[in-house]
Amino acid sequence: MSIQQIASFAAGEWVAPGAGAHRISSAITGAVIAEAGNDALDVQGMLDYARGKGGPALRAMTFHQRARMLKALGQHLNRHKQALYDISFDTGATQSDHLIDIDGGIGTLYVFASKGRREMPDDTIYLDGGVEVLGRTGQFLGQHICTSLQGVAVHINAFNFPVWGMLEKLAPTLLAGVPAIVKPATNSCYVTELAVRLMHESGLLPEGALQLVTGGLGDMLDRLGMQDVVSFTGSAETALMLRSNRNILENSVRFVAEQDSLNASILGPDAVPGTPEFDLFIKEVSREMTVKAGQKCTAIRRILAPEAQVGAVIEALRERLSKVVIGDPRLEGTRMGALVSAGQKADVLAKVALIGAEAERVFGDPENFTVEGADAGAFLPPMLFHCADPDRAERVHDTEAFGPVSTIMGYRDLDHAIDIAKRGQGSLVASLITHDPAVARQVVLGAAAYHGRIYINDRVSMKESTGHGSPLPHMIHGGPGRAGGGEEMGGIRGVMHYMQRTAIQGSPDMLAAIGNKWVPGATEIKGPAHPFTRHYGELAIGETLHSAPRVVSVQDIEHFAEFTGDTFYAHMDEEAAKRNPFFPGRVAHGYLLLSFAAGLFVEPTEGPVLANTGLDSLRFMKPVVPGDSIKVRLTVKQKTPRTEEYGEVRWTVTLTNQNDEQVAEYELLTMNAF
Amino acid sequence: MSIQQIASFAAGEWVAPGAGAHRISSAITGAVIAEAGNDALDVQGMLDYARGKGGPALRAMTFHQRARMLKALGQHLNRHKQALYDISFDTGATQSDHLIDIDGGIGTLYVFASKGRREMPDDTIYLDGGVEVLGRTGQFLGQHICTSLQGVAVHINAFNFPVWGMLEKLAPTLLAGVPAIVKPATNSCYVTELAVRLMHESGLLPEGALQLVTGGLGDMLDRLGMQDVVSFTGSAETALMLRSNRNILENSVRFVAEQDSLNASILGPDAVPGTPEFDLFIKEVSREMTVKAGQKCTAIRRILAPEAQVGAVIEALRERLSKVVIGDPRLEGTRMGALVSAGQKADVLAKVALIGAEAERVFGDPENFTVEGADAGAFLPPMLFHCADPDRAERVHDTEAFGPVSTIMGYRDLDHAIDIAKRGQGSLVASLITHDPAVARQVVLGAAAYHGRIYINDRVSMKESTGHGSPLPHMIHGGPGRAGGGEEMGGIRGVMHYMQRTAIQGSPDMLAAIGNKWVPGATEIKGPAHPFTRHYGELAIGETLHSAPRVVSVQDIEHFAEFTGDTFYAHMDEEAAKRNPFFPGRVAHGYLLLSFAAGLFVEPTEGPVLANTGLDSLRFMKPVVPGDSIKVRLTVKQKTPRTEEYGEVRWTVTLTNQNDEQVAEYELLTMNAF
Repeated sequence: MSIQQIASFAAGEWVAPGAGAHRISSAITGAVIAEAGNDALDVQGMLDYARGKGGPALRAMTFHQRARMLKALGQHLNRHKQALYDISFDTGATQSDHLIDIDGGIGTLYVFASKGRREMPDDTIYLDGGVEVLGRTGQFLGQHICTSLQGVAVHINAFNFPVWGMLEKLAPTLLAGVPAIVKPATNSCYVTELAVRLMHESGLLPEGALQLVTGGLGDMLDRLGMQDVVSFTGSAETALMLRSNRNILENSVRFVAEQDSLNASILGPDAVPGTPEFDLFIKEVSREMTVKAGQKCTAIRRILAPEAQVGAVIEALRERLSKVVIGDPRLEGTRMGALVSAGQKADVLAKVALIGAEAERVFGDPENFTVEGADAGAFLPPMLFHCADPDRAERVHDTEAFGPVSTIMGYRDLDHAIDIAKRGQGSLVASLITHDPAVARQVVLGAAAYHGRIYINDRVSMKESTGHGSPLPHMIHGGPGRAGGGEEMGGIRGVMHYMQRTAIQGSPDMLAAIGNKWVPGATEIKGPAHPFTRHYGELAIGETLHSAPRVVSVQDIEHFAEFTGDTFYAHMDEEAAKRNPFFPGRVAHGYLLLSFAAGLFVEPTEGPVLANTGLDSLRFMKPVVPGDSIKVRLTVKQKTPRTEEYGEVRWTVTLTNQNDEQVAEYELLTMNAF
Repeated sequence: MSIQQIASFAAGEWVAPGAGAHRISSAITGAVIAEAGNDALDVQGMLDYARGKGGPALRAMTFHQRARMLKALGQHLNRHKQALYDISFDTGATQSDHLIDIDGGIGTLYVFASKGRREMPDDTIYLDGGVEVLGRTGQFLGQHICTSLQGVAVHINAFNFPVWGMLEKLAPTLLAGVPAIVKPATNSCYVTELAVRLMHESGLLPEGALQLVTGGLGDMLDRLGMQDVVSFTGSAETALMLRSNRNILENSVRFVAEQDSLNASILGPDAVPGTPEFDLFIKEVSREMTVKAGQKCTAIRRILAPEAQVGAVIEALRERLSKVVIGDPRLEGTRMGALVSAGQKADVLAKVALIGAEAERVFGDPENFTVEGADAGAFLPPMLFHCADPDRAERVHDTEAFGPVSTIMGYRDLDHAIDIAKRGQGSLVASLITHDPAVARQVVLGAAAYHGRIYINDRVSMKESTGHGSPLPHMIHGGPGRAGGGEEMGGIRGVMHYMQRTAIQGSPDMLAAIGNKWVPGATEIKGPAHPFTRHYGELAIGETLHSAPRVVSVQDIEHFAEFTGDTFYAHMDEEAAKRNPFFPGRVAHGYLLLSFAAGLFVEPTEGPVLANTGLDSLRFMKPVVPGDSIKVRLTVKQKTPRTEEYGEVRWTVTLTNQNDEQVAEYELLTMNAF
């Protein structure tokens, strides 16, 4: 078998391994299969290329355009995923591990694509939160916005998920409009390289948007500036070294770290043997110990069970773990593959020795276990330890054996369980298996500040739950303290790591122009015709219709009450209404006002308005009493394309009375043909 | 005059100055007026006191309780502000400077109190964003929450605003439920000390919530952990030293930095002499140069004007600055006081020398100017420099003379202005004086990523605008790169710096219990009576009413159309409706459905429901055609107290048809008597 040459992609060129290249061995056979890295890479050239080409090209695209690109990239990878599966076995991963890495990575692209379209505007400026009124009459306003950083994101990834690890960072980065330089861990970089190659071949990426370093980064971190971001996944030691870089500290370069942590899983006091939760707990723990041979930053390292259940949990885990077939991941029956390298295996055994000084091994013997279909390679069995005194122990709370290793410990009561969980000093995830919502609230109040994610599971959610160890693109992934203090993903939250938030202050017209969104007080535009007769593309932000007035009579109110059945006393009974602190006497129904308003502004004939799809933020500000008249102002607030054929128009609707006092305001949504 | 002893407040005791105390001089007379600091402070005792007493006490309070405490603290300080004014003159500040510092600080407490009540729940868990549906049938959901950090916030403040500087950090910290240890700059710590004393005397603060160090912090930073936060305001040099602390890096201790920066103000190309904007620009610049004698992290250090207007701007500034009366701030006519200390004055003069190598001084001579009513003290005149070649200059873009010093430079076109602004490498604020919204959007797109705030002003907003240099509690204060990379305030955003965000995953019942908010799929509770007959306090989250069904006939639709005037074709014209991509034929009005729904669920008799105040997030999901029947599910989603007499109930209202398909869903708001 020839040794594969794993190139880097730098400044538009594939650069073959050269000086200082690293050799990479198969996790299964131990044989050298590839080499990667070239110390002569032009690091400054790569940064210039990203900042000079990739950034401007991405920033010229809207969020929707970038989102469509992500979706297309996902589709392209999905068509070629068999090739990625094929070369991934040598990392020691099984086919079901591949699904997490490769399909999980593609799914992350899809989720960010979808969120980009649904939750961000078809523009280059993202509005964060609402308008703040900073002056008395509304002529000076505030609005937070986010714009793309004008630098480059350097992604430093771990070996365990060569595809997902790249894509979970790349999706929010590209959606933010920022180019990336990806540095995968050398051990599994051949899988990442193929994924990068596929994405480049798709022709979907602008020039300069994605570069790859399969060896070392050289002095790249010393060359970063205030518009750049480093996003790191890996060990606490490496993170500390990188974040101590003086250039990074001096220029406030953003540094997002996601470190391995001592994640705990708590068996609830109610989840005794015989309950669905007990069985679920055993399933979750054994899965987390064996998936990816335990090489997961989110794996369960500490198993917390009520003292009375420790014996039962050990028994049940023993039974389940003893059925796990270890071997060549290419074989059909294999449930757990190899660790990524002999070095990684040695590291795990060293950590196991530390844990062994405080805890007894109750399952799995690294000197004596069966491997199917392989006789070399970095195999290990699942190993379960029992720590009898978690309060006095230290290593079990701070030593991460990054393999199929976990330690069970007993707790006295729920507060004790919370204390033990917190002894991890910050982790990516803690889980809790309970059917009791009060237990869930207690654990969350006590321990949430120490965890980036708390995963709760029971008989209700178990059919749909995604597993203790699975970060999802919708939810943040990261954690405080030992876990690195960072956050990734979390939907649009993750996009913001690559954007700058800026507080904008100014007049309504300034804010409207910047955000492409009408704000109260901004100029009203009189269109050439009724806005309901105008197509999506013709409508201008600020285009406004003022309706004629309509008097609301007591007969209207009574008729409406009778017709709808809404005979609430405030509409029907003058004396009772007067006793109400909000009303001067009988008042019109809110829904009567909405209905009359529609009657005042709707253009009845067939036209480009296809449907009223919804309504947001309706507030009734002043009661309307019999004899008042109402009129409507209808203004185009915001436009968002939804399909090839139509887009959503968000209108501000303001109802005023005969004294020009606002009686109600809301946002109306319509779907309009292009 | 006796030398005042400025104590620290440590672990519940006032500790007088002792070993290592610093002497403090009056900015006006140069005489020693106070001493502060004690190297023998028990640093670990302070941390234990905050973590052991203050944290648990604050965390036991809800956000609303903490908000009410902030309001009461503000009211208490407001009653005693004359005492704060009286001792503040010795810092060199004028009465109008005091308004910024003392009234501005009190105002910050009020804004956070108000936002805490309006934007946060009456609970200890804050919900961040909406529910994410993570499974197919909605039995596994996600929700981000924020909970109080369980450590202590160490606030390290600058000398220039001894009251505001403390309160702008303290308000979000206490609202988050986190105790603080405040370390003011020594030069002006006697003002901070009085404010702390007043707050303690108010009896409003729980034990351990607020401590004060008027000297050095000792090795406090080496003793911080993953639940603690350092929030720093001051120079870039000090920030670098502190954030390089190994303990902070190793434990991912949050470090928020707000550093002085080279803030720019841009005169728009349209704002030529004779426009209101030109005059406004001169006013803003001269104010920023002279307020607080230019000792403001947000002051305008770089004045950017079109090349053609540079001469006119210099002339106008000379005229205005020459009228500034410098002198003892206690004198009525004084417009600008002294710098805080002789050391600060010397530092400014050293920086001025650096700037002078690249720019010509066109106004103000530090060797020759008039001081009214004082003959010693750290006085300086406003000094204006002109830099003829900003592209080649370096010091004017990176040297901050923290006094009444600014440099004007010309720009060729707007892109050039953006480039110059960016040469500050990150600042707290840039301003733009223009009446042209297109100019505003261009500057924002080009430069926002380099600035924490962009302040736009023109003839419309100028009457209400709050000034280039004024951070507001509603908006973030901070900036990337040179400005420190941090954010403070920004409303609830600033509270989050002292809380941990955690992704919660679980079944609907788990999420509902954790967030005190009903979510779709959670258990419905059948109450003892119609929910409209039950008082605020009686209603349980999840309490649900199912209505009887009602058929919607074609007559109903036609009658409603005629009554309201809403004769939109989709309701009236079968053929036209069929051509519409959303409808199978004529459909009922959305507002008809809302109105019928109210008729189905409203309890008409006088009771605890006082008013329907609004409606949120209405979505029409499926058309209702003549002959369909609708029924309503009404569920208590969330409760928020609003006054002493009533609270807001948020209901989820779900309309389904005869096939149990959802046709509409929304959130209804009512005000209910306690």
